[in-house]
Amino acid sequence: MFVQRAMRQATKAQTILGASPSKYTAKVLSSSRLYSTPALAPLDASKLEINESKNHKALQENSQLVFGKTFTDNMLTIEWEAGKGWGTPQIKEYGKLQLDPSAVVFHYAFECFEGMKAYKDKDGKTRLFRPDMNMKRFNRSAQRIALPSFEDGELTKLISEFLKVDDRWIPKGRGYSLYLRPTMIGTQESLGVGASNKALIFVIASPVGPYFPSGFAAVNLLATSDKVRAWPGGTGDAKVGGNYAPCIRPQLDANKEGYQQNLWLFGSDHQVTEVGTMNCFVFWKNEKGGKYLIVIIFL
Amino acid sequence: MFVQRAMRQATKAQTILGASPSKYTAKVLSSSRLYSTPALAPLDASKLEINESKNHKALQENSQLVFGKTFTDNMLTIEWEAGKGWGTPQIKEYGKLQLDPSAVVFHYAFECFEGMKAYKDKDGKTRLFRPDMNMKRFNRSAQRIALPSFEDGELTKLISEFLKVDDRWIPKGRGYSLYLRPTMIGTQESLGVGASNKALIFVIASPVGPYFPSGFAAVNLLATSDKVRAWPGGTGDAKVGGNYAPCIRPQLDANKEGYQQNLWLFGSDHQVTEVGTMNCFVFWKNEKGGKYLIVIIFL
Repeated sequence: MFVQRAMRQATKAQTILGASPSKYTAKVLSSSRLYSTPALAPLDASKLEINESKNHKALQENSQLVFGKTFTDNMLTIEWEAGKGWGTPQIKEYGKLQLDPSAVVFHYAFECFEGMKAYKDKDGKTRLFRPDMNMKRFNRSAQRIALPSFEDGELTKLISEFLKVDDRWIPKGRGYSLYLRPTMIGTQESLGVGASNKALIFVIASPVGPYFPSGFAAVNLLATSDKVRAWPGGTGDAKVGGNYAPCIRPQLDANKEGYQQNLWLFGSDHQVTEVGTMNCFVFWKNEKGGKYLIVIIFL
Repeated sequence: MFVQRAMRQATKAQTILGASPSKYTAKVLSSSRLYSTPALAPLDASKLEINESKNHKALQENSQLVFGKTFTDNMLTIEWEAGKGWGTPQIKEYGKLQLDPSAVVFHYAFECFEGMKAYKDKDGKTRLFRPDMNMKRFNRSAQRIALPSFEDGELTKLISEFLKVDDRWIPKGRGYSLYLRPTMIGTQESLGVGASNKALIFVIASPVGPYFPSGFAAVNLLATSDKVRAWPGGTGDAKVGGNYAPCIRPQLDANKEGYQQNLWLFGSDHQVTEVGTMNCFVFWKNEKGGKYLIVIIFL
């Protein structure tokens, strides 16, 4: 079985309810805001404030790059508050987030993210691969866990500005790129379980090399059915934090038995839902000698 | 249907693999540490350092208490690092956590928690309700998401010391208590998906009143089958953050239709797995006129 690196996605497409205005009041949850988003301040790239770092860190050689370990000089942040909407987007020095220990991201996993890459083409221009699709999924993920929606074209513009500021960090050379990690977290400072009344988008960036430096090679997969990564009615179609941590223990167990990754199965008929960090291509010779290349795309 | 507040738990019991030493090396994941924990520094309550806050915040009247919104003067923290083990437990002023934006808790939901209460009895003594059971579940939750194990009796001792320091915050009066929130998060500063090489336990405390101030009353539940909270092979048996955020949108939808909470179902035969914030008691009259009180305990 040959495998290739790709964004982890989903197993079952689900309809996400659109945000439409409503006048109901929720006694248990104080978050009618989901249904009144249109009145709030939209995410607006033209409000961007740039206070870039004066501290220019040393770049690493391409050969030294490790996935997601080194970050650029700056980061992009945008705060959101219930009843107000999106605040001023800021590009500022990369640095620690200061959050109350009661912030709901630490307790209830109000968090979703995207993974996307910026490349330098042969003319030295910066290119993104279909960022509009990433932004759409980012919004869909946020909605699934009751985090605020945003104007996705505006976030793409802000990321483009961020790339101009940290331009020197985009590696040159085939297979090298600047990995971007747009992330949204719920920052409400209260343990009540409901929609977060505050949120933060942050975008950080890390120069990276090819995911598999040795090239296109086969890996061994352990077919895993006792732990389940995605299930109907779950969150396999959203890129939320909660999809990840529960998969680490099974992955360590697979490693222990000599496999690199898990082939995630669901149900008594062992439906394939996902492969560790990649999409999955199956070359199938059927009973009658027919040969098929089956591409499993996780949506 | 009558309902009563209780800790959310699980739907299917799962066997958690014990940590046993092994010599395998994992190329994909750099975390052989799960299998060599015994050699590392254990969590040791006798190392506790107390630097309590000099800033004594004003207490609130019992009638003003809101669940999980006000916190005591101090907090308990203990750091963990792969290859070293548990560090020095500290009781210090309640304050913000400073974390790198790449910390894995923000991306992959490396987070689990407990909810427990400290009460004052009629003699003014502080009492905890079976803290050993909470600590056991806390450890089980941590293991499910490859966070480090800890000596659970030691954490109970540390929580007792914390309660002495913030003693004045434990409310008096029937139904009032100090809610404790032990939390463990993964703090590795790198986006690689694997077991976190750093972790933090923090315990914060919030004075609270009765969960349902109006007393023992019926609530309306929306039977929910299109979104699923717990499933075989999932994390319903562990108190991990990822169980929570995906339930908010369905809860808001239930509220919109006039229901207070969701009755979570699983599968085509609609097995009951969980009710919003509570355990579930069913009074059942069967076809032959028999009457049964069924107590659904989530394990």
